[in-house]
Formats: sequence, structure tokens, C-alpha cells
Amino acid sequence: VISIAPVEGLPELHPGDDLAAMVVERFALEDGDVVVVAQKAVSKIEGRVVRLADVEPSEEARALAAGTDPRRLEVILQESARLVRTRPPLVIAETRHGFVCASAGVDQSNAPEPDVLVLLPEDPDASAARLRDELRERTGREVGVLVADSFGRAWRQGTTDVAIGAAGVRVLLDLEGERDRVGYELHATVIAVADEIAGAAQLVMGKLDGVPVAIVRGLDVAGEGRAAELVMPAERDLFR
Amino acid sequence: VISIAPVEGLPELHPGDDLAAMVVERFALEDGDVVVVAQKAVSKIEGRVVRLADVEPSEEARALAAGTDPRRLEVILQESARLVRTRPPLVIAETRHGFVCASAGVDQSNAPEPDVLVLLPEDPDASAARLRDELRERTGREVGVLVADSFGRAWRQGTTDVAIGAAGVRVLLDLEGERDRVGYELHATVIAVADEIAGAAQLVMGKLDGVPVAIVRGLDVAGEGRAAELVMPAERDLFR
Repeated sequence: VISIAPVEGLPELHPGDDLAAMVVERFALEDGDVVVVAQKAVSKIEGRVVRLADVEPSEEARALAAGTDPRRLEVILQESARLVRTRPPLVIAETRHGFVCASAGVDQSNAPEPDVLVLLPEDPDASAARLRDELRERTGREVGVLVADSFGRAWRQGTTDVAIGAAGVRVLLDLEGERDRVGYELHATVIAVADEIAGAAQLVMGKLDGVPVAIVRGLDVAGEGRAAELVMPAERDLFR
Repeated sequence: VISIAPVEGLPELHPGDDLAAMVVERFALEDGDVVVVAQKAVSKIEGRVVRLADVEPSEEARALAAGTDPRRLEVILQESARLVRTRPPLVIAETRHGFVCASAGVDQSNAPEPDVLVLLPEDPDASAARLRDELRERTGREVGVLVADSFGRAWRQGTTDVAIGAAGVRVLLDLEGERDRVGYELHATVIAVADEIAGAAQLVMGKLDGVPVAIVRGLDVAGEGRAAELVMPAERDLFR
């Protein structure tokens, strides 16, 4: 049996906050737990925010804005390595990390204050590793950490949370070569368990509840995976 | 707190089996539980299987087979409404239901016997509704039912389980127009909760364990959604 519990009562987060201390005060971690943290919480602590007042929009940003604030589009362009699809003002972009998502992960909702945009962490795997180390120092527990964000999907409505950062977690479970009940090879049966865990955590975190951390217990996924492994390599990607 | 429990000890399934009775014997359902059933279990019960010996491959199937069994490709073509990408023998197709997935959902692993392919249910939403009705008749409980299958994703490695059938569950949670902590409109924040629930259930079901049913408890998602709502309408789809 797996359980998913929210960490309740966390305050609004600010740059430099000690999230490990805040979690440990509110939740008794056990070995093997997976701590799932919303991307926006990580980004706020890391100061990954931009004030619209400081942004000078380019011509490209103005063209993509389609009547909305061109400064927001400028920030999206700066966070993009490649534009995948555009329907102004909607932009689907590949980030420098290789993630394909709406607005290159730039978000206004849940921003710490008006006229501020929240960017993805510079290196979400490193963010996860730091939090894992800090949790180990404070508790002696070996836990996994995932940084989760809500991504849209091609062909399907709605977002699901996926892992954009990971530490201490096997992110892909490869069943290739193992055999099922009637003896067939399972070809290319690789399960993105980290994404499934992130999505499961979202079920208790919600968007409006101000619950940026959830603890998933009862999994057997300890390992040394990184969320970067979840990015499809260009040469295998049929959808570039 | 949400819990996810496997329904253990289910036998190999056959056409006409009474899955509701089997689940109820092994698990005490409560109102609001979501019963997640693996697609293959539903398909086997519904007799949605094809014997390779009965299949005559077309020229197109032979061309796509690239040295593998062309009869399997023939079945995939018959299950496809549209081919989305091909890299023989790999086929990504849109099914008649509108789902975009590898092999149009046709699968050999976990088949009931060698040389048999398992197809998606004809109408997975109807399959879910039937099971929900049968569970209500046997227990008096109001539960939700999801039929789950493992789908690949564009741009990301690995599969996650998503909902291809639903009954008694709100599949999309629309936060549009609600406001977050600092007063921003949340634009287009629609969460595909049914897909997140299906993925969460996969974490206890696995591929090799022979656990085709899991119970998710502690959600607040009762409603009358259908998995068909999770299919992106063509006119809004940037990836057609």
C-alpha cells in the first residue's frame, strides 16, 4: 500500500528559506519516503523570479503577445531553447533543460507578488539533490526528492504533474528483458515512475491549497536517477 | 491522505469473468473509492483478443513490419483511425477512440496465450460504467472506476498510465477563474486528475505482478466524467 500525505501549514516561501527545516518540523520522514516539492516552491526559494518592470520586450515578443503583455512573452523567449509550437499568445517551447512545456515553464499564477514571473529552477536535479542532502543531515533518513511541475501533453486535455528534478529516486523502471506470466519478452516497457509519483503527489497538493510539499510512502524506488533521464533524446524523438 | 492499495490474489482473467465479484471478495470498498482496472484485464474479460493465425497481412502491414511479424502490424492498422508517426516496425497511431498511442493500443505482452494480441476495449467508458454498476449492485457503494493503460508521451522517456475509460469520476479538474493566494486568475489550469489517478495506481500494479486492479482512497473526485473528455479536440490540438 502506498500513501500520499500533504505537508500542511507551510508558510509562503521566500528566497533563502530553509525548506528542509520547515518540512522536518511538520512531518516525520522515514527511510524510503519520496518528498515531492512543487517547482514554484523551489523557484521562489532559489530566487528564480523576474519583475515585469525590469523586462524590455523584443519585436519577436511583441509579435507573439497578440495583445497580451509582451514583457511576459520576452521572458518566455529568454527561457526557451527552441519554440516547438506557437499560437499567439500561446507558446510551447523546449527549455534549456530539454523539457517541452507551455510558456517554457514561466508562470504568473502563484507568483509571490503581482507583476512577478516565476521561472523554472536553473538545474532542478541539483535543487533536488541539495534538498535531499539537507533532509539527510537533519534526520539521518535516506529519502528521495522530486521537483514536480504541471505540464500539458500532446493530444490529451489537461495537465499532469511530472518530475523536472530528482535525487535518490529511480526515475525510469526498465522491464525490458524481464518476462511476464506467459513468457513473452516485454519490449521497451520502461515506466516513468518519477512522473507517476509526481502526478500522484499533485492529487494532494492541488493548485489553490498552498500545499507545495507531499510525502509519498511505501514505494520501492530508491536509486540515483535524475529527471534529465526523462527527456527523450533528440535522435529517438519522433515528435521533434 | 490518499492511499493506493493493490487488489491481490486475482486469478488469470477470461472472457465473461465477473470482475466485480472477484474484487468485492477481496476488498472492502467504501463510498468514494476509485477502482482502477488495467486495460488488459478489461479487454480479456470482453474477449477483445485476436489470434495471429486468423490474420492475413496486407501489403501496407508487410511494409511497416520491417522484418517483424506482419500480422501484428495488420491488426495495428485495423485498430488505427490515423497513423501519427511510423518508424517501422514502430507505429504511433490514433485509435478510433481518439487516443494517440504506440501500436494503437495493441499488445502482445501479458496476452492470455502465445500468438494472441490484446486490443483496447471497444468503448472503455462503457466498460467502466458497467463495472461501476456491478460494484454498486453488489456492495451498495458509490465508487468511481477508471480503465488504465500505459501510454508513451511525446518528448519524454517512458510510459505513464492514463485513463482510457472512466465512470463516476471527474476526469478534468478545472480551476479556471478561481484565484490563487495573491489574486491572479489561473488561466487554463485544467488538471487531468483521472490520468494522475491512473498513474498513481500503476505504482502498485506493476507490469509483472499480475495485479490488474488497485483501489485509490481519500480522493474527492466523484462526478460523471468520461475518459473521452481527455482527448484533445482536433481544433485545439497543436500537435496534429
